Amino acid sequence: MNIGVVGSGALGLYYGSRLQKGGHQVAFLLRRDYEAITQSGLSVTSPHGDFHLPTVRGYRTSTEIGPVDLVLIGLKAYANEQLVALTRPLVGPDTVIVTLQNGLGSEDLLAEAFDPAQIIGGTAFLCCNRGEPGTVHHLDQGSVRLAEFTDGITQRLKDLTVTFNKADIPCEACTDLARIRWEKLVWNIPFNGLCALTGLATDRLLACAETRTLIIEMMQEVIAAANRQGLSEPIDANSFIRKMISATEGMDAYRPSMMIDRLNGQPLELEAIYGLPLQRAAQQGAPMTRVGMLYALLKITE
Amino acid sequence: MNIGVVGSGALGLYYGSRLQKGGHQVAFLLRRDYEAITQSGLSVTSPHGDFHLPTVRGYRTSTEIGPVDLVLIGLKAYANEQLVALTRPLVGPDTVIVTLQNGLGSEDLLAEAFDPAQIIGGTAFLCCNRGEPGTVHHLDQGSVRLAEFTDGITQRLKDLTVTFNKADIPCEACTDLARIRWEKLVWNIPFNGLCALTGLATDRLLACAETRTLIIEMMQEVIAAANRQGLSEPIDANSFIRKMISATEGMDAYRPSMMIDRLNGQPLELEAIYGLPLQRAAQQGAPMTRVGMLYALLKITE
Repeated sequence: MNIGVVGSGALGLYYGSRLQKGGHQVAFLLRRDYEAITQSGLSVTSPHGDFHLPTVRGYRTSTEIGPVDLVLIGLKAYANEQLVALTRPLVGPDTVIVTLQNGLGSEDLLAEAFDPAQIIGGTAFLCCNRGEPGTVHHLDQGSVRLAEFTDGITQRLKDLTVTFNKADIPCEACTDLARIRWEKLVWNIPFNGLCALTGLATDRLLACAETRTLIIEMMQEVIAAANRQGLSEPIDANSFIRKMISATEGMDAYRPSMMIDRLNGQPLELEAIYGLPLQRAAQQGAPMTRVGMLYALLKITE
Repeated sequence: MNIGVVGSGALGLYYGSRLQKGGHQVAFLLRRDYEAITQSGLSVTSPHGDFHLPTVRGYRTSTEIGPVDLVLIGLKAYANEQLVALTRPLVGPDTVIVTLQNGLGSEDLLAEAFDPAQIIGGTAFLCCNRGEPGTVHHLDQGSVRLAEFTDGITQRLKDLTVTFNKADIPCEACTDLARIRWEKLVWNIPFNGLCALTGLATDRLLACAETRTLIIEMMQEVIAAANRQGLSEPIDANSFIRKMISATEGMDAYRPSMMIDRLNGQPLELEAIYGLPLQRAAQQGAPMTRVGMLYALLKITE
């Protein structure tokens, strides 16, 4: 399969490298890592075994890549003004566009520019950071959930999960895109923002009684709002929160992407992870008080 | 009047210097400023006119001072483990103890060690920072409200307000100590903590729509909790909040004491301003959600 990766941050580089290792033709749209990767390839460290791809097809512009079978979008949501322009040259009539961007709004934005039937949304539960140019550190987790933007579970969705699984990317086909996006928000909303705001990794926030309680209360707010969004099946707060906390404890001292963005002086994905979910929650009469406060604190400290 | 000042931070030095300028005998218990003040006196800059006290009675221990007519307590609440020991040598049978400490709990702590009838509580609405040793910068405001811990408005309370007013300290006698303490918390709870957490002064927080709303919502939470504490008269949320916001806008880019404590790597007055008010609010069935979140964030970043 011909694959183009738009947004070659930690996520894009990691999944792209897995797919190339799995035998696919992968073209990466690169900025920071262009020199390093086109000259020396891409190195991945991973608990599943380190590997190096000596030859990687890196490009500076999307037009050099041209139409592909599959576009994999890992662009940071704060760069979404460029999303359509960066994606367009890669899209032909049969191209499938898979967006793994954080938060809400990614598919809606793509659906304004492309045929909605071409769009698949997904969430990645992945602990991964970039290292030196040309290096990606996969730390933990790594599974992906995919769902059609317009339909239920199609044959192409099933085929795509097989492709991902064969490339050592644990992948599941889901019926309800809103549900998997909101489930991801249950983790992202407390941890991304609180780690970015305090400069502390996940383990520190869970070790302090007050912030551990705060995290759980924020998860409850997000689930209450999620369950008003017309999901196919509601999220069970108790069991889902237990699962999220337990998975996070297994991550040790993890520094979420938003924390790293802040430490690097980068913008934060505030609208996708906070602004839009807060709007959707308020529209459905489930205001998220603590989430709104975190949004305000992140915004004023931008 | 013989006056002893315990806690010679910005507040203790400022009010102590006004009282000395007003003709009273003032003894200051000093640490950081001992050398500077005993050698060169105390300088005050103020919008009401700068002044210098060339001779100031500074001491390193309370026993050197001995019993006084009036103890003025401005000690930071995070040092309250030492409060009784520092105060005891200054207290005789007729001594009046006036505590202007922030938050809740100060009088209760003193009442365990001294005759409750000796205690007067108060709040200071004062914008004041320490400068170089021996220098205090009075920036804005400065009024004091006093109330008996055990009784209503007594003759000695009235006399004390006259003493303060004569010394250019605008002062008012109040009947309800709990009410003036909670009114002060309406300002302290949002501004002290948010400025300390974000590192931004009051004007920046009021200029951003999200944090301005957050401040108002936190004030509403505090007033709702205050109005369940059996106050003599409830606080009217709308008019009081308007007054507080307007006064704060008049302060320009003010850095509250807790922000300065954090910038200086000092501990914060968390229990007096957040911990105890949160307990009292919860006990009366008025949980303060945003205040609790701010407390957790300040605590984890200590």
